[in-house]
Amino acid sequence: MALARFTRSGLRRSGGTVGNYMTERNTFSERVSDHKTFFPSPEKSNVHSNLTCPSTTENHISFWSRGIRTTPHHQSKLAERLEELELEHDETRYPGLEATKPGEKPRVVVLGTGWAACRFLKGLDTRIYDVVCISPRNHMVFTPLLASTCVGTLEFRSVSEPVSRIQSALATSPNSYFYLASCISLDTTNHEVYCEAMSNGGLPQEPYQFKVAYDKLVIAAGAEPLTFGIKGVKENAYFLREVNHAQEIRKKLLLNLMHSENPGDLWFVAAGLPEEEKKRLLHFVIIGGGPTGVEFSGELSDFIGRDVHERYSHVKDYIKVTLIEANEILSSFDVRLRQYATNHLKKSGVHLMRGVVKEVHPKKIILSDGTDVPYGLLVWSTGVGPSEFIKALNLPKSPGGRIGVDQWLRVPSVEDVFALGDCAGFLEQTGKPVLPALAQVAERQGKYLVDVFNRIGNQDGGRAFSAEDMSLVDPFVYKHLGSMASVGRYKALVDLRQSKDAQGISLAGFVSWFVWRSAYLTRVICWRNRFYVAVNWATTLVFGRDDSRIG
Amino acid sequence: MALARFTRSGLRRSGGTVGNYMTERNTFSERVSDHKTFFPSPEKSNVHSNLTCPSTTENHISFWSRGIRTTPHHQSKLAERLEELELEHDETRYPGLEATKPGEKPRVVVLGTGWAACRFLKGLDTRIYDVVCISPRNHMVFTPLLASTCVGTLEFRSVSEPVSRIQSALATSPNSYFYLASCISLDTTNHEVYCEAMSNGGLPQEPYQFKVAYDKLVIAAGAEPLTFGIKGVKENAYFLREVNHAQEIRKKLLLNLMHSENPGDLWFVAAGLPEEEKKRLLHFVIIGGGPTGVEFSGELSDFIGRDVHERYSHVKDYIKVTLIEANEILSSFDVRLRQYATNHLKKSGVHLMRGVVKEVHPKKIILSDGTDVPYGLLVWSTGVGPSEFIKALNLPKSPGGRIGVDQWLRVPSVEDVFALGDCAGFLEQTGKPVLPALAQVAERQGKYLVDVFNRIGNQDGGRAFSAEDMSLVDPFVYKHLGSMASVGRYKALVDLRQSKDAQGISLAGFVSWFVWRSAYLTRVICWRNRFYVAVNWATTLVFGRDDSRIG
Repeated sequence: MALARFTRSGLRRSGGTVGNYMTERNTFSERVSDHKTFFPSPEKSNVHSNLTCPSTTENHISFWSRGIRTTPHHQSKLAERLEELELEHDETRYPGLEATKPGEKPRVVVLGTGWAACRFLKGLDTRIYDVVCISPRNHMVFTPLLASTCVGTLEFRSVSEPVSRIQSALATSPNSYFYLASCISLDTTNHEVYCEAMSNGGLPQEPYQFKVAYDKLVIAAGAEPLTFGIKGVKENAYFLREVNHAQEIRKKLLLNLMHSENPGDLWFVAAGLPEEEKKRLLHFVIIGGGPTGVEFSGELSDFIGRDVHERYSHVKDYIKVTLIEANEILSSFDVRLRQYATNHLKKSGVHLMRGVVKEVHPKKIILSDGTDVPYGLLVWSTGVGPSEFIKALNLPKSPGGRIGVDQWLRVPSVEDVFALGDCAGFLEQTGKPVLPALAQVAERQGKYLVDVFNRIGNQDGGRAFSAEDMSLVDPFVYKHLGSMASVGRYKALVDLRQSKDAQGISLAGFVSWFVWRSAYLTRVICWRNRFYVAVNWATTLVFGRDDSRIG
Repeated sequence: MALARFTRSGLRRSGGTVGNYMTERNTFSERVSDHKTFFPSPEKSNVHSNLTCPSTTENHISFWSRGIRTTPHHQSKLAERLEELELEHDETRYPGLEATKPGEKPRVVVLGTGWAACRFLKGLDTRIYDVVCISPRNHMVFTPLLASTCVGTLEFRSVSEPVSRIQSALATSPNSYFYLASCISLDTTNHEVYCEAMSNGGLPQEPYQFKVAYDKLVIAAGAEPLTFGIKGVKENAYFLREVNHAQEIRKKLLLNLMHSENPGDLWFVAAGLPEEEKKRLLHFVIIGGGPTGVEFSGELSDFIGRDVHERYSHVKDYIKVTLIEANEILSSFDVRLRQYATNHLKKSGVHLMRGVVKEVHPKKIILSDGTDVPYGLLVWSTGVGPSEFIKALNLPKSPGGRIGVDQWLRVPSVEDVFALGDCAGFLEQTGKPVLPALAQVAERQGKYLVDVFNRIGNQDGGRAFSAEDMSLVDPFVYKHLGSMASVGRYKALVDLRQSKDAQGISLAGFVSWFVWRSAYLTRVICWRNRFYVAVNWATTLVFGRDDSRIG
């Protein structure tokens, strides 16, 4: 099936009228003017000679990255700096990689280092393409095992895989690069992305921005934790999406355990009952009963049952783990598995609570029924949604606000742009549902797309604008292979049904825990980490978990 | 030999006239009034009923901890808080552990979790004593291997050992505790220490302070990196004493490597030559040619030669490692070993430079001869000296400003106080030299002292004031077992001479590297970490080092 088919179906760009495109743009203009955003003028741009007004640019979209490392402080400094630049702007100010020339290999630019991006990178034929990967982290996180690192079952580096090991051309090929940077704007007309280097304050000229021209662009920039606009979540809760999130959770967990051992009545200027304070410090609350929330609860109760009871015996009776969910836990799983998980968690000492969070304060959660829940550590895992980056992109959107793609994972309104993973969803016009934000979806899409790329690259379709009328052959079709979740104490759930209402095999217990571990072990990409995960698991079994608090 | 001997020699406290005691106290009074320090009034104190004037307290000494986690921000908040408290102070405000009662086990309070403290803790007979350990970190750092963690040869947690594994009574015994806190003042008259809990801002009432009464006090609080008052060192250099220092060095190293790959001319508002900037970012400078500096240089050049050249091939030719030393590297080693190390480092690509640092700026070092040395990463390892905590203590001092001890490691002017490790040194009156700040000295002292404690405890000398006339048997005698240093690429130096001028065996090369590794491996205290260190070494050999940049 050729791209021409989509020209007919009206999905291709023709003045920005597809879907909610105009509405999005208006909303976006308001947002950026609030933030004093500056729009860089690309050197070669024919379309927009005017710098100051975002609405004059068609496909040239800028936004504030709200990635894992951008602090508000940094943002405001950046805003000031950009204001200065706006005054003194001239066309030569943006260093970067220029468009490839005839005779050079076409350049694929990949945004992100998650499951989709890394699977894509791994498979890319670097004899055909040069590749540039842009991401604020230089490693892939093996997300299904992240919950285990919070309590020391696994080491942090066992679940992170350097991107240069996944695709060695990034490190060694003369025209391929990895940039530790956030993409801050796209110019789809000129086939360029604008980036800002990540920094810890050591650079002489900050922010350092640059542009990279692409022949093909692959957006796999992921999603962000959903907070539903609930007050106090971002300030007080911990998320569990990155290795440094897990590090923070671990540090806070151990700190609270140690603090609760402090002698005497806990607060010398008495502020309430000291016993209550101790209980609060040791009340660990998880919001969200999806696989991540359940796995973290399971790991935490394992850690408490096996290691904490032994090593913090003075305070062990004050510890409580509560999992709060508005509906049912593991709602996508088979009903028997859900029941199994519920029973198992209860037996492990996890308190299951129905509730909807209204507000989060530094020391307590307020539920919508008015209940106060004092807490010492709050982990928030209520799923993910589009990041500010994705929301601000002036591209057609799928239901739910992801980047809208056709069945070949192309963004149909623009040329040579593809999106996949958690940041992409099928457009309504495709008649397909938006796929869940799962590692297996992202991984399968990465594999599909890289096969397409290798095929069209072999047919000389790698260069910008060269694959317009080329057949991409079969569309992407997702086949669900089943869901797995560990519930702690060597027990897991495996749901092999293909959809929520289908018939199929469900397993719960030790066997499925073994299946779960083995399945993950073979998925960890390089042998070094496979080996480390196995070693970590074995030593946890033999020696228990380590509880050094570093940093 | 009994303590009575020292009464005769005039070293025991008799109105504060020993050694430089008065001078010290005056200096100290000035210092504390600068800091608006508040002196808590211990409940039982007979000596000092007056709160406001430090000079009225004899052995009641307060200071600001300058440990690894106290930020200036925290200090100023603390000062404000203490000012408030001064106004509203009453005697019940300090929660804590009261003095032990007859029939209870005597309580040993240990300050610190370094080599000396941990060796002491490990050996303590907890059937005789209750033990309280107070330290801003809950683990021991296996310092000789710390340099290896900066470049990923070893994992961070392989070199850190939780203190509750070293002495399980801290976790399990009903009256033994570990407190994550800094000691902020001593009241040697009343046998109490005042502490401030470490925090990351999550406590409702900060700072949280408490006191702990002791029967015996063991000060093993370590030392701090020496900066010789050179301007800019603390602000711009990285030290290498704690696991989080190693983490910071690793992050900066990887950040600079990635930044140097940024496209185009490096600074878009051109500030000098971009090539120069790239060279600066990739110039890694080590100041100090002692074992730590040499080992870090060796590890770094290994990392660059083996892993960086492969994974950052675009910029590998810009990388340079320079070791700057005012005199000779490894000056305590045999002359042949020094020569071997020099040749070996040169061959590995480390530039050795003679020079004395005058000032450190954010991007360059200025040497005393006027040379500018631009750098991207600066690691400072010029040895250690007394911390502010130790300096401020109103106790007799050894030459060099450490806590002065007699040959039984007692602090002779006060009752039931012992000091050991890097924070202690023999008093001039003992006629013994101050021992070097080495792990093996600290470890040996810990072992010696815990044997003394177990012996006197068995003779009912464990309680406060009960061992005054008890024989401590043999004094501590240090026998040097030799020095070891790795220089990278499977080569190390082993100097088995007992002193600088003695005759003895010196080894250099692969055999001694093997000895070095084996020696360290058997010293890592628990089996879990022994196992991990071996696994880390093996995987580094097989797979190379990991370069994920986390956090």
